[in-house]
Amino acid sequence: MRISERALNIQASPIRKLVPLANAAKAAGKHVYHLNIGQPDIETPPEMMAVYKNFEEKVLAYGPSQGLEFYRKNLVNYYKHNRIELTADEIIVTTAGSEACFFALLATCNPGDEVIIPEPFYTNYNGFATWAGVNIIPLTTYVEEGFALPDSLQIEKLVTSRTRAIMLCNPGNPTGAVYSAEELGRVAQIALKKDLFVISDEVYREFVYDDEKHTSIMEFPEIRDRAIMVDSISKRYSACGARIGCIVTHNQEVLNALLKFAQARLCPPTLEQYAANAAIALTDEYFDQNINEYNKRRKTVFAELQKIENVVCKLPQGAFYIIAKLPLQNAEDFVKWLLTDYSLDNETVMVAPAAGFYATEGLGLDEVRIAYILNEVDLKKAMNIFRSGLKEYLEK
Amino acid sequence: MRISERALNIQASPIRKLVPLANAAKAAGKHVYHLNIGQPDIETPPEMMAVYKNFEEKVLAYGPSQGLEFYRKNLVNYYKHNRIELTADEIIVTTAGSEACFFALLATCNPGDEVIIPEPFYTNYNGFATWAGVNIIPLTTYVEEGFALPDSLQIEKLVTSRTRAIMLCNPGNPTGAVYSAEELGRVAQIALKKDLFVISDEVYREFVYDDEKHTSIMEFPEIRDRAIMVDSISKRYSACGARIGCIVTHNQEVLNALLKFAQARLCPPTLEQYAANAAIALTDEYFDQNINEYNKRRKTVFAELQKIENVVCKLPQGAFYIIAKLPLQNAEDFVKWLLTDYSLDNETVMVAPAAGFYATEGLGLDEVRIAYILNEVDLKKAMNIFRSGLKEYLEK
Repeated sequence: MRISERALNIQASPIRKLVPLANAAKAAGKHVYHLNIGQPDIETPPEMMAVYKNFEEKVLAYGPSQGLEFYRKNLVNYYKHNRIELTADEIIVTTAGSEACFFALLATCNPGDEVIIPEPFYTNYNGFATWAGVNIIPLTTYVEEGFALPDSLQIEKLVTSRTRAIMLCNPGNPTGAVYSAEELGRVAQIALKKDLFVISDEVYREFVYDDEKHTSIMEFPEIRDRAIMVDSISKRYSACGARIGCIVTHNQEVLNALLKFAQARLCPPTLEQYAANAAIALTDEYFDQNINEYNKRRKTVFAELQKIENVVCKLPQGAFYIIAKLPLQNAEDFVKWLLTDYSLDNETVMVAPAAGFYATEGLGLDEVRIAYILNEVDLKKAMNIFRSGLKEYLEK
Repeated sequence: MRISERALNIQASPIRKLVPLANAAKAAGKHVYHLNIGQPDIETPPEMMAVYKNFEEKVLAYGPSQGLEFYRKNLVNYYKHNRIELTADEIIVTTAGSEACFFALLATCNPGDEVIIPEPFYTNYNGFATWAGVNIIPLTTYVEEGFALPDSLQIEKLVTSRTRAIMLCNPGNPTGAVYSAEELGRVAQIALKKDLFVISDEVYREFVYDDEKHTSIMEFPEIRDRAIMVDSISKRYSACGARIGCIVTHNQEVLNALLKFAQARLCPPTLEQYAANAAIALTDEYFDQNINEYNKRRKTVFAELQKIENVVCKLPQGAFYIIAKLPLQNAEDFVKWLLTDYSLDNETVMVAPAAGFYATEGLGLDEVRIAYILNEVDLKKAMNIFRSGLKEYLEK
């Protein structure tokens, strides 16, 4: 009795696989600061939580496969406010961004087809690609260059007869990079020239710093029919557990396919859509407050990293992650050691080894991803532990 | 720019595709009785709804990929009560039964592999098979035989070198058939003989009538490592919109793969698991009441069908569906006509054409599936409309 090859080959989450070590540390009485996972500590808006309290329907019923109509209509306004023009019929509500990514791959690729993705990339793209039987072709970007996209020739070189799409995460997890309108324009040109779709994961849209402006893939009329946007409320409203996202495109043929994919799983969670809908009424002030908080954390974590000799990193412009190159051979060993062998005042810190974010073997081995998702007091303590831990580790 | 072949080929939901006609009928002022979809009218238990009202966490956070531990531990007791012995680590909570079915196919099949499924079958299996690139090999069963499984030779004849599993729905949607211990034992023997997995969708476990007892695929020790059970709370607690299910197996290798699939999509909805957990405390009395109600409806719908000349159907033993063979060529045309051209006192009825539940072309064209999910008063009215509509349609 053999299981499938994809079941054997699918990557274990490099973020979640060290959780048992963290649990063991906690069981031994150590406090662990978690900077390894993108679970924000920011409160879910009370406006959303009130929806759960006030829900008066007697039957928690199926909703429409494409999502509740009033929610999709309100999303149109949310997107309009973000300079993205579309209709409610061009939105399909999904079970989080995960399902949206998977559907995007299903709609554009046959098994064995290829999608070009800048690396390091969100590690779960590997999972969705495995589900869909799609091959990810990594386009390497570098910490020293702030993970900017390479020139068009470098990208075009990766296109083969099996390439169906370029997939971007903007702002980037795990890089924190924000692609400029110029960079995205180049991707659009390549899509036109090489007949490709562009799948853009924009779940961190609001998380952009220093008065930089986020540009959506939906703002390029020349690839109106080639752009597929993936979105999620998980980070935007600190509602990761709601599992509500959406997939958006102007391409009617793709929409027809997406709707059929959506029908197969009946519907996304119903009550959670009511909650997500309530969040749309939040004003810019809500985001300003949160982004201001994250901005402080970003500066804190960057300043703390700057204090460490021979650590390479750039100030990230978006999301809430930073990748740091450390002066050692194997960052995963160091991350494990922090959990199993190290503590400062009986506390330690957990970060994510970055190698799992690269598809090219051997890259990122000396890098870690830090998610700055704790309040400043804890973040400073955690980074202090990180710094002193690294010092001790290097002197071992 | 071409979309993928699977995007072009995936079946539109035969249940949901006629929804626009129903909407048009309603817009024109007609009342439509919906017997076409498995959305029960039974209230979601107040014990579940109270969880939403009383949830006091400030952050709606990610849960573990395998599901919340306290919920999985309580599920162990639920299953024990249903003569299924397992541990909390042998359960992975999924986003409804849909995801559980998909994961089961992913874990057992490579693209191009085959799964044998008795037809007519739950039409969304087609969608999950398309997602996974798996080919469904239909094992035809017949309304005249109450959709019982054919003898072992008939089943074995379908096994090829690409066959990886036999997938059952028990009790059956859309058939209402309940497989006996003898039938399941034969499937187990075939699985052993031919080296196959058995995937068993048991979401209608409690919906069994006339003192018949449901037998789970987990009750066959000879296929302890080959059995994969798919489950969902959608029908059990009339909580279709919660999107909580699970996948269960004793096979450690399959579990490892399932956990990695689960990690790729991070987690199922968090708060919905709290609600599902509250439902576990419901006693047999809860089910007795509901099953008693469905049993009355089952008898009503069957009695009403018996009144119509030349309609073939058997009294179903489980779930809340009945398939009826009608004295006409094309049941879908009739179903459409009921929505577009017919009404009785400005009311009409919607049922599901059954052809979409068959994989073999040409089968089921003269059959419909009726979901008896309305209260008896409405059900009688709806069946009266169905009967008089059919009479008029046949006399046209």
